[in-house]
Amino acid sequence: MKKVLLFSLLVVLQAIAFGQKPRARDIGVPFDGVPGKHNAVTDVPGVEVGYSTLIAGEGPLIEGKGPVRTGVTVILPKGKTGTPYAAAWYSLNGDGELTGIPYIEDYGFGYNAIGITNTNSVGVVRDAIGQWSHSKFSQGEAVDYSFGLPIAGETWDGGLNDINGYHVKKEHVWEALESAHGGKIQEGNVGGGTGMALYDFKGGSGTASRVFEIDSVQYTLGVFIQANFGSREELTIAGVPVGKEIQDLAYIFDETRRKDGSAIVVVITDAPLLPNQLKQVAKRITHGIARTGTYSHDGSGEIFLAISTAAPKYNTAGTREAWEVIPKWHLNPIYKATVEATEEAIINVLLAADDMVGINGNAWFALPAGRLIPVLKKYNRLKE
Amino acid sequence: MKKVLLFSLLVVLQAIAFGQKPRARDIGVPFDGVPGKHNAVTDVPGVEVGYSTLIAGEGPLIEGKGPVRTGVTVILPKGKTGTPYAAAWYSLNGDGELTGIPYIEDYGFGYNAIGITNTNSVGVVRDAIGQWSHSKFSQGEAVDYSFGLPIAGETWDGGLNDINGYHVKKEHVWEALESAHGGKIQEGNVGGGTGMALYDFKGGSGTASRVFEIDSVQYTLGVFIQANFGSREELTIAGVPVGKEIQDLAYIFDETRRKDGSAIVVVITDAPLLPNQLKQVAKRITHGIARTGTYSHDGSGEIFLAISTAAPKYNTAGTREAWEVIPKWHLNPIYKATVEATEEAIINVLLAADDMVGINGNAWFALPAGRLIPVLKKYNRLKE
Amino acid sequence: MKKVLLFSLLVVLQAIAFGQKPRARDIGVPFDGVPGKHNAVTDVPGVEVGYSTLIAGEGPLIEGKGPVRTGVTVILPKGKTGTPYAAAWYSLNGDGELTGIPYIEDYGFGYNAIGITNTNSVGVVRDAIGQWSHSKFSQGEAVDYSFGLPIAGETWDGGLNDINGYHVKKEHVWEALESAHGGKIQEGNVGGGTGMALYDFKGGSGTASRVFEIDSVQYTLGVFIQANFGSREELTIAGVPVGKEIQDLAYIFDETRRKDGSAIVVVITDAPLLPNQLKQVAKRITHGIARTGTYSHDGSGEIFLAISTAAPKYNTAGTREAWEVIPKWHLNPIYKATVEATEEAIINVLLAADDMVGINGNAWFALPAGRLIPVLKKYNRLKE
Amino acid sequence: MKKVLLFSLLVVLQAIAFGQKPRARDIGVPFDGVPGKHNAVTDVPGVEVGYSTLIAGEGPLIEGKGPVRTGVTVILPKGKTGTPYAAAWYSLNGDGELTGIPYIEDYGFGYNAIGITNTNSVGVVRDAIGQWSHSKFSQGEAVDYSFGLPIAGETWDGGLNDINGYHVKKEHVWEALESAHGGKIQEGNVGGGTGMALYDFKGGSGTASRVFEIDSVQYTLGVFIQANFGSREELTIAGVPVGKEIQDLAYIFDETRRKDGSAIVVVITDAPLLPNQLKQVAKRITHGIARTGTYSHDGSGEIFLAISTAAPKYNTAGTREAWEVIPKWHLNPIYKATVEATEEAIINVLLAADDMVGINGNAWFALPAGRLIPVLKKYNRLKE
Repeated sequence: MKKVLLFSLLVVLQAIAFGQKPRARDIGVPFDGVPGKHNAVTDVPGVEVGYSTLIAGEGPLIEGKGPVRTGVTVILPKGKTGTPYAAAWYSLNGDGELTGIPYIEDYGFGYNAIGITNTNSVGVVRDAIGQWSHSKFSQGEAVDYSFGLPIAGETWDGGLNDINGYHVKKEHVWEALESAHGGKIQEGNVGGGTGMALYDFKGGSGTASRVFEIDSVQYTLGVFIQANFGSREELTIAGVPVGKEIQDLAYIFDETRRKDGSAIVVVITDAPLLPNQLKQVAKRITHGIARTGTYSHDGSGEIFLAISTAAPKYNTAGTREAWEVIPKWHLNPIYKATVEATEEAIINVLLAADDMVGINGNAWFALPAGRLIPVLKKYNRLKE
Repeated sequence: MKKVLLFSLLVVLQAIAFGQKPRARDIGVPFDGVPGKHNAVTDVPGVEVGYSTLIAGEGPLIEGKGPVRTGVTVILPKGKTGTPYAAAWYSLNGDGELTGIPYIEDYGFGYNAIGITNTNSVGVVRDAIGQWSHSKFSQGEAVDYSFGLPIAGETWDGGLNDINGYHVKKEHVWEALESAHGGKIQEGNVGGGTGMALYDFKGGSGTASRVFEIDSVQYTLGVFIQANFGSREELTIAGVPVGKEIQDLAYIFDETRRKDGSAIVVVITDAPLLPNQLKQVAKRITHGIARTGTYSHDGSGEIFLAISTAAPKYNTAGTREAWEVIPKWHLNPIYKATVEATEEAIINVLLAADDMVGINGNAWFALPAGRLIPVLKKYNRLKE
Repeated sequence: MKKVLLFSLLVVLQAIAFGQKPRARDIGVPFDGVPGKHNAVTDVPGVEVGYSTLIAGEGPLIEGKGPVRTGVTVILPKGKTGTPYAAAWYSLNGDGELTGIPYIEDYGFGYNAIGITNTNSVGVVRDAIGQWSHSKFSQGEAVDYSFGLPIAGETWDGGLNDINGYHVKKEHVWEALESAHGGKIQEGNVGGGTGMALYDFKGGSGTASRVFEIDSVQYTLGVFIQANFGSREELTIAGVPVGKEIQDLAYIFDETRRKDGSAIVVVITDAPLLPNQLKQVAKRITHGIARTGTYSHDGSGEIFLAISTAAPKYNTAGTREAWEVIPKWHLNPIYKATVEATEEAIINVLLAADDMVGINGNAWFALPAGRLIPVLKKYNRLKE
Repeated sequence: MKKVLLFSLLVVLQAIAFGQKPRARDIGVPFDGVPGKHNAVTDVPGVEVGYSTLIAGEGPLIEGKGPVRTGVTVILPKGKTGTPYAAAWYSLNGDGELTGIPYIEDYGFGYNAIGITNTNSVGVVRDAIGQWSHSKFSQGEAVDYSFGLPIAGETWDGGLNDINGYHVKKEHVWEALESAHGGKIQEGNVGGGTGMALYDFKGGSGTASRVFEIDSVQYTLGVFIQANFGSREELTIAGVPVGKEIQDLAYIFDETRRKDGSAIVVVITDAPLLPNQLKQVAKRITHGIARTGTYSHDGSGEIFLAISTAAPKYNTAGTREAWEVIPKWHLNPIYKATVEATEEAIINVLLAADDMVGINGNAWFALPAGRLIPVLKKYNRLKE
């Protein structure tokens, strides 16, 4: 057992030495299920993620000047091809925003990129995605980018960021879109997640994935989260009451009322599913969040998207739409993967984030792996 | 023009002479679209409808004794085969009941018969459908009748019927199920619609259908309604304010507060549609109801089902579910047919129903075709 | 009767002579119910409406240059005070956009202005409303304008407008906000409705209201619509098949596929209602639309808001929220007013709009009152 | 530490000796929050619970004969007074049934008792509740028992019970209703929960409660669950992977396909809340379920009700409905209590249930407290 602890600390130190923080499972947090190659939403074939991170200034807040601690994240479920994907949404807690809801609810499709940013910048991100898509289509680089109802969500970063300064501009959105890629992606203080808090530690962007078989066919499911919720005493990792064990590293904040945060969670799978099946998947994101301890506070806006990249096929005339999906009685591996990858993505955020000081000297501190490991050990939950 | 009027009256008299009342379009009510062979929900291949009508006693209400003016209607979208159908529901006005909602909402399927009865008998009808289905399955007469979440709805007939006498029994439900058939079906004071009122005329059961082409393929859509709503002054037929023109023939009722009624509407089509597309179809039933004049009162429970009999196909192992549906951009003929057939089914109820006296001498009077025709003529809306 | 016709035409000519087109009821279109002073949403105490109308250029479309035929409308249910209002939404047809949905759905409140614009400009309008609200709050001019989830909706004006030119800017939104007022408001080709089409006539902005009593208390309910839907043959006015009678005045359009339009409808009342009651009100907007003939096409996005300005009261500590509302069994006058005012607002759009030529010489023609009057007369539906 | 373990075992032995099994917190399972007097839904003033338990026969299944392992549970949120309560519902997983949904969804009220039984008996329970309510009202024993849309839910007990024998009758429902009481209530193999399974241990009925303050006012929230879900390897208690640690005590079952179960959860509080607030409460039940480990399988029907007994007040004329509720920004203690009490009620089921043998010798075994205690200890989660 002692060996396990030493090994875990070694992983932490090595990773830091190489300018790269360890992820949750690297230090021995036990998770069920098998992750994909990068343990990221980009393990789902074709998925691309892009960030634009805005960090500038320090000191007192001057609206319109800064300090700036914000950004925008884009997720392209089918890359830059502009082809549609099956989609469903679910609001666990409607104290947030997601554009594109009526279309997703009634027709079960999404198109183009999904943007995630701060609360006040949803509009500019929404319009900019539409404009970029139209530009791609005009240039003949995409099948159909002309659809006018883009999807953009948010969480609130006004604790660290000059949110009323409206620093996210169209060019930042386009930058995130143009730079989007598959493979390994960053986590923590990047993109829309730059200025976020999570269980009163520093929060931000996180991801995880699962691979699984249904009837001998292998599928991948990935989760991306912009995480900005929870209070310290709730934090639970692998069933262990970590938040009660680590009560220091408290945020520094200049206001009496700490505003509760939010989460945008996007689940993407290449398993072929109907929109109403994806709605059931989206509801399971709650289980993953619940495993990390929160009861989902008032004031927090937890809004979820579930996407299948295996969209229907059309005949040449466009008169028939063919779906070949997994029947409901075989969906359990998908539900299981959703819960597990959501849980892991949240813990990944905590370990990837770095301390950050923002407006008026407000600060959130990251959860140090070196502090987490002995707590897991105390409860016999550190994995060899 | 005078010729038109004479002809219409002739149709009425002939029909009555042959023990059969004319339907709305027979007397010249103008409707858009082309009806199927029987202008009934049973024009959709495979659909069967069965009734059990309970009429007994007269005079003062003695709870448990009568008078009885009630019944049960069953609609079998795929006959007695027990195979599932795609389904969606919509509540325009939730002051009513429909069992089976959670399954339809989350999974988009229905199984077996749909029952419609009076408010207090929903439970017995629900259980009896399940029991009959299981019996069919046990006898090897059906593919899969063992599903345990039957669909049953209701409207309130306590104005004419001893509704607290619970006169509908399991055997009546089975009788309706066993006697269900395709082809021509009865309308008016039959089945679950026996004791209903509509725009302060006698209401009950009604049906209509439309045939239409989408991309050179012909489809049929049928509507069945158990209609029990509206106040006289609202009644509009073909845009004509009929309720304002015919103010006599008022109901006779022993209570000061006339209870507002309800409607269960079932739309069935053989056009292949996904559950979320069927939800959009279900919403259009409101348009059809609105064309007949009501604003849908409080106290009325308007609950709708939309069904596609062209359910998905499964591979032998049951590991793949294949849908081949009509894309959203080709759905307009289906929406149009839904609105038109709903409107016509309602007017068909009015013309098919007969005067009825129930508990305590309460009475509703039918709308006489001979009264409707001159009103339509006055507004230049009688069709040649 | 002949006298009626002459009078109606006189009203039309007089109104035109004085630079003001007659409204639907002025020329004798029969509507039920009693309108408020201005027959406008602004009859509800405290409601303000503002427009910014952008019309520039003519000739071929050059993206980013024009021609421009668009704008933005803002509706402030409680004026510029920034106090919240009870709200509910409903999507008849989700092929559109409305921001702010998760909060309205889960918590039943709206804050600040509601913006309506073209499809591509929803984002800029959404962010600009938030920024303006924050600015008002910062200046101490409003109780609480700092809420970050503004409501903005859209309909598509790409038939006449250079919609991919993104001509609506923050300053236009602020201009509409600053100029918002109560009392009499414009209709037709103004604000967000500038470039819209309705039943293949010129569409745009319209309004109507009703006053009614519930238990001896008088209330007002107003409707505002940005109307951009329907095909000619469907158009029904007062039950009369006007679209079939007036088949000329066809739009001029350079593309084979005419895109189906949409509608944003906002109902506001001073009657005190809970959010879930307002949801029932919102559903009745469908009845009003249905009365004008459409079955609500695919591709059209009909999205509705229902608002009560009689929001709850809070104790000083903010620990108690007190509602005093109308019980459900007294809601019928509100439902009735909603249906009637929606219907009238739509017809008001048709009569207020002017012919408009836009990109590439595309044109829609207004419905001339002089053409409508004889058609109503033919069907005996012209009101004295 | 050793002392803790000994004490816990002592509690177990004592309780068994006195014919009463210990509850989860008695043996040292750690839970957050403070329970009410009986740690039961009946801690909420006025709430009554009644059971009718049907256990008869053994050996092979003969449909209609038995063996019988079923029953019915009734929950009366406001006792036998027949007064309405505010209510909302939520379906985590729609593979189940709950009657009364349209009314609750649209109007936010429930009336009378809530019944919970086996899947096939929902109808008889639903009708019987209505009939009993009407009888109470007729006898002048209740304010208003005449409402015709009763609430009844179910979970599937066909693994142990002759479910197609339809053994639950009207008299059993009335028996449960008449015997309903407040105070201490039974858990485990009673009422509707008689034949249920939970995480592949024996399941059934369970309850828990929390007391908490909001702005110096004390409220109580109670949860009742009929629990019939989950697979062994998922079972998590206080964050500990109990299901992985206790792999024996496997059920004995004669079919290859074990049918996934369901849960009906009812949360009741005396805290005054609006229906839309109760919807947010209902969603949090998922968190409580998730804490016990399951990802909520397909085939399981998890359907929830959230109720506030502090319903609105009406003026004498019935023209005004007054609510005085807790504002949304003070709801966190209610959300927290919901999650905690749901979690505890589930673990209470496991510890209260007894081994049961049913049809064809099928058997589920209870989770012995003596087995649970050392597992909690192994993970340092046994509470002193």
